[in-house]
Amino acid sequence: MVSKALGKYVHSLHQKKYRNRHGAFLVEGGKSVLELLSSDLEAEQLLATPEFAAQYQAQLPSRVPLTLATEQELTQLGTLATNTTALAIARLPAPADLPPTLPTTGLLLALDEVRDPGNLGTLLRLADWYGLPGVVLSPGCADAYAPKTVAASMGAFARVQVWERDLAAWLPTLPTDVPIYGADLAGDNVHALRLQPAGVLVMGSESHGLTPAVTEALTRRLHIPRGPAGRAESLNVAISAAILLDNFFRNQ
Amino acid sequence: MVSKALGKYVHSLHQKKYRNRHGAFLVEGGKSVLELLSSDLEAEQLLATPEFAAQYQAQLPSRVPLTLATEQELTQLGTLATNTTALAIARLPAPADLPPTLPTTGLLLALDEVRDPGNLGTLLRLADWYGLPGVVLSPGCADAYAPKTVAASMGAFARVQVWERDLAAWLPTLPTDVPIYGADLAGDNVHALRLQPAGVLVMGSESHGLTPAVTEALTRRLHIPRGPAGRAESLNVAISAAILLDNFFRNQ
Repeated sequence: MVSKALGKYVHSLHQKKYRNRHGAFLVEGGKSVLELLSSDLEAEQLLATPEFAAQYQAQLPSRVPLTLATEQELTQLGTLATNTTALAIARLPAPADLPPTLPTTGLLLALDEVRDPGNLGTLLRLADWYGLPGVVLSPGCADAYAPKTVAASMGAFARVQVWERDLAAWLPTLPTDVPIYGADLAGDNVHALRLQPAGVLVMGSESHGLTPAVTEALTRRLHIPRGPAGRAESLNVAISAAILLDNFFRNQ
Repeated sequence: MVSKALGKYVHSLHQKKYRNRHGAFLVEGGKSVLELLSSDLEAEQLLATPEFAAQYQAQLPSRVPLTLATEQELTQLGTLATNTTALAIARLPAPADLPPTLPTTGLLLALDEVRDPGNLGTLLRLADWYGLPGVVLSPGCADAYAPKTVAASMGAFARVQVWERDLAAWLPTLPTDVPIYGADLAGDNVHALRLQPAGVLVMGSESHGLTPAVTEALTRRLHIPRGPAGRAESLNVAISAAILLDNFFRNQ
């Protein structure tokens, strides 16, 4: 039975304003909840069906309050079309410093005004697949802890480190030997390069590409060749990032 | 002013049943409408704001009835959160035969139960970027002419040829020298191959991968290497297809 107060709290976390006020965010669906519980993030409360609670009893930490709920209640509380298993409230991670060895020793993905939470979640999943040390978000990006981002990340929200930086201010402070890559139709053909995964790869917004100040900070522009008979004008930002990352990691 | 009958007709096309009954589908937003008008598809009716109609007068064919509408009317008629410019009703293309030279002379993308219209639209956009001769959909795929598919395809709906085939029945009828590729975690590392864009590349559903009968028809399984520190279990279907297609087209 979900109390009125708990229901109100969960609903408030649909909105960024209240996520920031409470320092918490929602994790919806059994698979994502299990990813949360096996990660370093802190779970604050769990809501689950009796069936889920019984099946995963061993994975549910006793220090986290558990409320049993019906499928209908879970679906009403959350943002998914249906949620038949579980929902968690997790603590937002405290803002962390960027390790001083980065991005010299690894490739950071930096996102410039990527506003669609589905794209952001897919990009986090990609960063998780390639084991990137983290993702830097400009202030205009979608919220990394919005329900749609969390869902699209398929568990990556619990593993990928995220920092927020004003890219136009941050990129110029990097050591001059750190390569800063960006996608550009007039850039170098990635197939002709032997890229190594260190430095920063900046991806721009879905509709406007990179902002001018960020473009200026690039040290190398990369171009994904279109097929010889290809006609599309552009690729989705997550699709472009995937192709570029495969090109960075193929020479290892 | 949009008549009640026209409004009802447009609304009915939100649903596949009525798209098939009327042989028509919706194209929403100015950019997609202009892609439609510059393609081989047949436009049946146009609805646009007076501003859009004035600005693109030269591109609006006189044989297609034009109804002027307000932004509010367009948004109410369509499925987008806002539509500030135009909406078209287009004729569904007649089912076409697969050219007999395919897939020997080019690479076809075949989709096995890809149910999410956003993923399908992104895959059509990708097929358009690489200039593939077309995409083969299993009957369980999302509708290629659903509003969400059309929107996500970013104009590719108007250029990419689509066929529907029962893949488990169709794949075994192909000549034995036609390679049939599929993604598989236990497959060959794509980075170690020199793939050529001919044959069929089959991509499976978001949650279940390839169906068993389709898996049996594969002649070569391909594996996208994960980063050395990577942890995600899998990639989104459109992301995987993008990385594989870049690997097919890099050896040209």
